[in-house]
Amino acid sequence: MSPPHLEYIFRPQSIAVVGASTDPMRWFINEFYIEPLLKMGYQGKIYPINPRGGEIVGLPVYRRLRDVPGPVDHVISCIPARETPQVLDECAEVGARIFQLYTAGFAETGEPEGVELQRRLLEIARRHNIRILGPNCMGIYCPSTKVSFCINYPLEGGPVGLIAQSGSNATYIIRSAVVRGLRFSKAVSYGNACDINECDLLDYLADDPETKVIAAYIEGTADGERLRKVLARAASLKPIVVYKGGYTSGGARAASSHTGALAGSDAAWDGLLKQVGAIKVHSVDEMVDMLVALLRMVPPRGFNACAVGNGGGASLLATDEMERVGFRLPPIPPDIRECFKGLVPLAGSMLRNPIDAAPLMGIEQVRLLDRAGDLSRWEEALQEMRFPRGDKGMGDFMAALEDWPELDFLILHYSIDSLPGIIREWAIATGAGPMIMAGKGRRLPAATVIHFIANEDSWRPSLKTQQLCIEAGFPLFLSMRGAARAIRRLIDFDRTHPGMLTGIRGNEA
Amino acid sequence: MSPPHLEYIFRPQSIAVVGASTDPMRWFINEFYIEPLLKMGYQGKIYPINPRGGEIVGLPVYRRLRDVPGPVDHVISCIPARETPQVLDECAEVGARIFQLYTAGFAETGEPEGVELQRRLLEIARRHNIRILGPNCMGIYCPSTKVSFCINYPLEGGPVGLIAQSGSNATYIIRSAVVRGLRFSKAVSYGNACDINECDLLDYLADDPETKVIAAYIEGTADGERLRKVLARAASLKPIVVYKGGYTSGGARAASSHTGALAGSDAAWDGLLKQVGAIKVHSVDEMVDMLVALLRMVPPRGFNACAVGNGGGASLLATDEMERVGFRLPPIPPDIRECFKGLVPLAGSMLRNPIDAAPLMGIEQVRLLDRAGDLSRWEEALQEMRFPRGDKGMGDFMAALEDWPELDFLILHYSIDSLPGIIREWAIATGAGPMIMAGKGRRLPAATVIHFIANEDSWRPSLKTQQLCIEAGFPLFLSMRGAARAIRRLIDFDRTHPGMLTGIRGNEA
Repeated sequence: MSPPHLEYIFRPQSIAVVGASTDPMRWFINEFYIEPLLKMGYQGKIYPINPRGGEIVGLPVYRRLRDVPGPVDHVISCIPARETPQVLDECAEVGARIFQLYTAGFAETGEPEGVELQRRLLEIARRHNIRILGPNCMGIYCPSTKVSFCINYPLEGGPVGLIAQSGSNATYIIRSAVVRGLRFSKAVSYGNACDINECDLLDYLADDPETKVIAAYIEGTADGERLRKVLARAASLKPIVVYKGGYTSGGARAASSHTGALAGSDAAWDGLLKQVGAIKVHSVDEMVDMLVALLRMVPPRGFNACAVGNGGGASLLATDEMERVGFRLPPIPPDIRECFKGLVPLAGSMLRNPIDAAPLMGIEQVRLLDRAGDLSRWEEALQEMRFPRGDKGMGDFMAALEDWPELDFLILHYSIDSLPGIIREWAIATGAGPMIMAGKGRRLPAATVIHFIANEDSWRPSLKTQQLCIEAGFPLFLSMRGAARAIRRLIDFDRTHPGMLTGIRGNEA
Repeated sequence: MSPPHLEYIFRPQSIAVVGASTDPMRWFINEFYIEPLLKMGYQGKIYPINPRGGEIVGLPVYRRLRDVPGPVDHVISCIPARETPQVLDECAEVGARIFQLYTAGFAETGEPEGVELQRRLLEIARRHNIRILGPNCMGIYCPSTKVSFCINYPLEGGPVGLIAQSGSNATYIIRSAVVRGLRFSKAVSYGNACDINECDLLDYLADDPETKVIAAYIEGTADGERLRKVLARAASLKPIVVYKGGYTSGGARAASSHTGALAGSDAAWDGLLKQVGAIKVHSVDEMVDMLVALLRMVPPRGFNACAVGNGGGASLLATDEMERVGFRLPPIPPDIRECFKGLVPLAGSMLRNPIDAAPLMGIEQVRLLDRAGDLSRWEEALQEMRFPRGDKGMGDFMAALEDWPELDFLILHYSIDSLPGIIREWAIATGAGPMIMAGKGRRLPAATVIHFIANEDSWRPSLKTQQLCIEAGFPLFLSMRGAARAIRRLIDFDRTHPGMLTGIRGNEA
């Protein structure tokens, strides 16, 4: 099979950064377009361009594009808008195929000069047969070819293909997804979309074998009819999650002044996305929750859930959030209840569903610390622990839940800031850890929810606990409301798209 | 005026902790009930009680309650449920007025023995004229009398009076509120409410001069008619925010097994809360957002807002969230637009509403760093900066917004994880700082929203930025959706309760 159209924009042979600068106030340009390439280990040539010459992070700076001593494939513009047409002419001279513009100040300003400048740029590009990405965009993150615009994005790739019309939202979405254990095949911030647009990119991702799920943050389109066709084709091949920014009338005006997008009415988008079978979301959190569910959770067969966690209050809130979306927490059958009674003291626990497993966590914590011998060894001891049937602890507990025939899935939750004691990393992780490790690899679909407030005390223990969930292979959610909503939509999606999710999970990094 | 009924439960002369222990596995009891008292600087006597004697954090341990060499006012039980009736008899011997039970294993278990034990306990207490708090509760946090059940709660008090039926939710609510700059007059986790209940506590807080706003997390009530009267009286005196846990049918079942509460239907609660004029919320976040709005924001006169922040994408999302709840972001009048054009380069900015102020932030950041001379001095330099009219920067910008007659309020937002560069504390704080400091103390009501993801890079810069907002006196929100919803409800509340909010703001710590 031939590589999908546009593949070459993700595989630049060499990259020139026009406007790279040694000025400390312009250093951010190097931080976006040079340092990330070095960090990722980009194999092509990197050419900083600045009329002053000199050196940037050890690379020689060329005064003009045409001074570069070799072929230039991909040119990134970080200079003022009025200077870009001339650079585009130079791009043609050196044989560049892509002109990507971080530069803003075009149609999105709403000013006639900006609109005209963008029109002129496109005209020049067409004449030279050069494709434009942007203007007013951050560009490309592609781990497999080691291209990135942010030094902190992961080196390793994954199954999510993202397009985002806004650079800041692209960044926000990627960072939000990364902390949840997701990784990307490609992410493109495409800005004003004067040439390469959402249709081109979605078409590409539909055929991209690295991309298992597509996520799109779109502010508007210039060609609704083509978008409908492209989306319909993409959605017939892969799950696609769409966040339409600017869905209120003020938001639509803002979209126009942000990327010059023709926003369209919310109702029109709603209809379009429903028709093609895309999943519509209304916030970055909702988008990331949905990606987590699609990529990391086996769709439950039905709506019967059991919630297991620490604290009666947290359990109660979990129940409300789950029943809100139509799940049911059925009462625990008498035989399983009897089994639980043998494991934990009755006080402080709830032998109904939701289950406040705090007393059982306490017992396992003591076992774990006994095994570790020394507090400093808790992580090692946790990794070594096994939870077989007959262990009079978490193993029996989880096995009993697996024996519950009506149960469709499990929610394991842990609320860090509900604990009135001192919040210590080892205490949190040894409290939640055995539940997470004992729940790992079970027959029942399961999700984890870790609640926390980012304060001095809890943020680091919470990161550790989140990490345990991710490493154990669970879908990780940061709110019960988000988890419930995403799991509900996962089930609905699976029912309307039978078989599409098979083979998707397990492909994540 | 005589002190409100129940005042004495917040002013214990001495506290005995039955079940305090030197066993490392029971150390959490000291962490809840002894160490916080020492940390707060509690002035009364503290008596650990344990048959083994010994010493705990320098305090002598008495073997029995009756061995204590002085009057005992308030007794906290941390021993198994079956032993509590005998201790309650001892309470009478030593003249205690309050018996508070961390101990669980009573009516909330749903087991006949637990129900009966709770009934017996109440009977003994009535006979001895001792009040019971709990069982199955964390107890009291009262900064003015230096009583607390958590070592990390602030020493200083504030205007929020909280009652919470769940100990873990009490903790979660307090911690969530504290990071937003709120402080508490009293907080009571009251558990199964077998004696002192939500009605008694609400009645107390209604009259408590330290309490300006009441927050209540309630799972159920045994006396709906009394609760209606108590709530109506309290709500006629102060704003009251109620979160009813267990509002779904499964949640109601969970409430019953958590604190033995009679949950009641959601519709019944809805009707009750509407009738009395309480503000109903559906999550801890929503509760805290509402408290922040009530206590830290002057109610806007109308619905016309201007959003100012960093990043076009974030601005667009802000617009959607604000218009969702009925706010309007009117276009900027031509004269103000002209004024802005003189301040910032057009590119990358939006001279419409929402305003992407990133270029202006960049200019102020350079000024600030110039002034600081050295990066390490940025905090000092920021505190020294003034933003007068005519400064060609943030001063002119904010003054122009104040000159906009149709504007009712301002949202200043900053999205930390939208920045593709390296996230450095000084860079974030000097980027957002001038906007925050320039917006401080303006005529227009204003709120701040700081977005972040708690990852290794951004959590600490985000805390610093949040701190700037709080110290500048702004209401601080952590999501645009939460801010929009709370501000909308603030305006609605102010219109239906004219005058009630006057004098409340400015009383926070």
